[in-house]
Amino acid sequence: MTSKLKLYQDWKFKLSAYQMVLSLLDIDRITVAPPDGNAYRDERTAFLSGELFDISTDRGMMEILQEILSDETLNRDLRKEASLYYKEASDIVCIPRDVYLDYKKLIERSYLIWLKAKYTDDYSLFEPLLREIIESRKVLIGYRKSDKPLYDEMLNDYEPGSSTAFYDPFFETVKERLLPLIERVSKAERIDDSILHRYYPADRQKAFTHEFLLPFLHFEPSWGYQNETEHPFTSWLSQNDCRTTTKYVENDIVSAIFSTIHETGHAWYAHNIDPRYDGSILSYGVSSAMHESQSRFCENYLGRSHAFWEYCYPHLQDYFPAELGEVPLETFYRAVNLSTPSPIRTEADELTYPIHVLIRYEIEKGLFDGSISTERLDQTWNDKYREYLGIEITKASQGLLQDVHWSSGDFGYFPTYALGSAFGAQFYHRMLQDLDVNGALRSGDYLAPISWLKTNIHQYGASLTASEIIQRVCGEAFKPEYYIDYLENKYGELYGLD
Amino acid sequence: MTSKLKLYQDWKFKLSAYQMVLSLLDIDRITVAPPDGNAYRDERTAFLSGELFDISTDRGMMEILQEILSDETLNRDLRKEASLYYKEASDIVCIPRDVYLDYKKLIERSYLIWLKAKYTDDYSLFEPLLREIIESRKVLIGYRKSDKPLYDEMLNDYEPGSSTAFYDPFFETVKERLLPLIERVSKAERIDDSILHRYYPADRQKAFTHEFLLPFLHFEPSWGYQNETEHPFTSWLSQNDCRTTTKYVENDIVSAIFSTIHETGHAWYAHNIDPRYDGSILSYGVSSAMHESQSRFCENYLGRSHAFWEYCYPHLQDYFPAELGEVPLETFYRAVNLSTPSPIRTEADELTYPIHVLIRYEIEKGLFDGSISTERLDQTWNDKYREYLGIEITKASQGLLQDVHWSSGDFGYFPTYALGSAFGAQFYHRMLQDLDVNGALRSGDYLAPISWLKTNIHQYGASLTASEIIQRVCGEAFKPEYYIDYLENKYGELYGLD
Repeated sequence: MTSKLKLYQDWKFKLSAYQMVLSLLDIDRITVAPPDGNAYRDERTAFLSGELFDISTDRGMMEILQEILSDETLNRDLRKEASLYYKEASDIVCIPRDVYLDYKKLIERSYLIWLKAKYTDDYSLFEPLLREIIESRKVLIGYRKSDKPLYDEMLNDYEPGSSTAFYDPFFETVKERLLPLIERVSKAERIDDSILHRYYPADRQKAFTHEFLLPFLHFEPSWGYQNETEHPFTSWLSQNDCRTTTKYVENDIVSAIFSTIHETGHAWYAHNIDPRYDGSILSYGVSSAMHESQSRFCENYLGRSHAFWEYCYPHLQDYFPAELGEVPLETFYRAVNLSTPSPIRTEADELTYPIHVLIRYEIEKGLFDGSISTERLDQTWNDKYREYLGIEITKASQGLLQDVHWSSGDFGYFPTYALGSAFGAQFYHRMLQDLDVNGALRSGDYLAPISWLKTNIHQYGASLTASEIIQRVCGEAFKPEYYIDYLENKYGELYGLD
Repeated sequence: MTSKLKLYQDWKFKLSAYQMVLSLLDIDRITVAPPDGNAYRDERTAFLSGELFDISTDRGMMEILQEILSDETLNRDLRKEASLYYKEASDIVCIPRDVYLDYKKLIERSYLIWLKAKYTDDYSLFEPLLREIIESRKVLIGYRKSDKPLYDEMLNDYEPGSSTAFYDPFFETVKERLLPLIERVSKAERIDDSILHRYYPADRQKAFTHEFLLPFLHFEPSWGYQNETEHPFTSWLSQNDCRTTTKYVENDIVSAIFSTIHETGHAWYAHNIDPRYDGSILSYGVSSAMHESQSRFCENYLGRSHAFWEYCYPHLQDYFPAELGEVPLETFYRAVNLSTPSPIRTEADELTYPIHVLIRYEIEKGLFDGSISTERLDQTWNDKYREYLGIEITKASQGLLQDVHWSSGDFGYFPTYALGSAFGAQFYHRMLQDLDVNGALRSGDYLAPISWLKTNIHQYGASLTASEIIQRVCGEAFKPEYYIDYLENKYGELYGLD
């Protein structure tokens, strides 16, 4: 076994080297790479992805992985790690190479057509592709020869252990309790957020971000670097090399601020994982929902709290004395927490956000159980927005063409966004028992809640499952009620509801 | 042969993929990568370098390369390309792997010790390492079993076809004709360049660079990207993906400007090479001197010309109205062409620059023929600076510890810096016969000289040798006299010498 474990460690290292360069190529492409060089880079990136594919699905190594898995004398982390690698490899290796490559090509093609369809507001362009992708996904998942329904397999890919049986009651609760709340809020007096939409020059926003906000968030240049892109994201080469981006919007003072808090939340998760896991599959974080729970935790539970702004707002005013000098903290705090139904998920407020996800979940489920068809899917989409949020979608670009996910075959991902927020609420409830979160934020101590997250969640990486972590931290299983309670309390108070 | 050529093309492509990611890792490390992530990245970068090493020295491919070389039915470019790959591989493959790896480790170690020695101004720290590097280089080159003297082998590595027999008369001419000129200039009335050293805020310099200078130089965002680093450099992933850097110095208005013109000169060379050579060894440029000839051509022959500033100076004044608004063009032009002996090569003016190189050439030659020892080399160095430039070096950091080259074993590289300037002068002389260079610059047309360089030099990449290009463009062999004449005329005029 010793020599096999040596082979395994070498294989892991090799895998991590290719993953590192592919991450870097991706970061570089999105941030600064000159576009005329894309074709050259892409050809070679595809070649290196192929190398990574061959390494990760090496048959000899898969046998070793199985041996590790079945050797109960080995330590828990090692076997957990091997099981994750094995799952990843076996999900791909069962697919014939030509089928897999055809699918990759379909995805490349469909991305461009989705872009065009979105740009021209024409769902009919994208519809045949969407149908083809769904059919291909069914075929691909079929090779796994799993007993589970197709959509459950996909949900499980992003959120291990999840299924429609897990998500259904969650979204049922969201629907039952949040839709009435949203209705009540929409009838209450509207919060005026016009002060957020004055003209805020990008260079001063950038100065605030780099001189105050990033240092306040302890996003240190020694392990983190922030750049600018059209769509903010976080990526990392290792736990001490985290890259985030933001976007400065000149008629919105909080867009870059909240995206910065959100993305550095992902970065903190990656940075805080036990160093023993660096470069291993255990360093990726437990699941999509768990990662999203951390970024949204930072953005919403911390970043949109009153205490956060008690400390930070005077600093923001210093950078924008003419624009905000006379605006009271209270006005600003209420403005950043305005809730109002809107068509775009990524711009949605904390309260209406899960409804956007609910709609996508219901549609994905229907697309895979056959109860919803891609034909006239734009109508289905618009009907749901009318029914749940009371808004009329008039353009496909603001409707079902807004998100990139389906064009790249990522079905089953959306639900993790809402689940992440719900995980976050349960953690927040627990954190408040351990820590004077608001007191810490009020005194400018952002590290206190981050340290709590590190100790209780981040450090474990993927060595525990999401439910194991929740059970360990909260002493009980996941409960969506914490999330709903939090939203009810927060928005009840903000909008003066009884 | 057809199937072998297919194997060869696949091998070239593979090689180019690894080279691309290694370049990107290097660019990233120097520009933005968080330092705490270095160790993780370096381990994996070393692994990928090993992969590249194994691919580039593949024995089976070396046999195919030899077959290509000896097949006279194949086209010239293909055989030239194969010969360059073969030379590169055979120079390494003759070295036993452990000897090669030991050398790599020595270089890594010596770099850090050089840094420390430079920082503490203590040559004695670095001396044992320098001795060891020289001995190792001798051993390494010895494996080639070449008939040539060691230093000739090294000169030839950077400048194919060169040798001491080639450089000796060149530097003899430099010495004979430039030393007296420098002496005369130093006795003439000193040019006042104090206006260059007022306070010039970095953000306004940056605005000038990005809003005016880079567009003026036609360094387009579609194929080029400029960043900032301590030491400006140029690197490229492909001809349509060129990365340069600069450094903004707040008490020097021209430092960033000339480094930008210099580095984009390298970038233009890489960008203009025939697209058929992209990704091949033929795309690297003919030689170090030829590359340097292009960057220094842009920096000096174009960038320090009167015509260049006739167009650009009013734009610079627009960005610095308080600092330069009242300063006449003539004062500015003379200031950027001030010549005065100084200890640091990279900060030297156009006239004294080749003397810095001459000193290094004489020392390197002596170190390898045994006439100069590493012991008390600081004294040898300082003696030469006193003799040739009339200056006293009081600190090793301003003396023989100033350059990184020797710590990384790069002997034979320095001479290409001076040779590049001399190539440039010969090209410039020829260009003036084809093109109204000054008229073009005066009207803001920087592309006219660049197009000439593309047609006559850049496009060929390494498919021709430096001497073939010079012969083809200038209708005669390389002659150092053009360089000396240019300097005599320019500085004679500037300093009012007869």
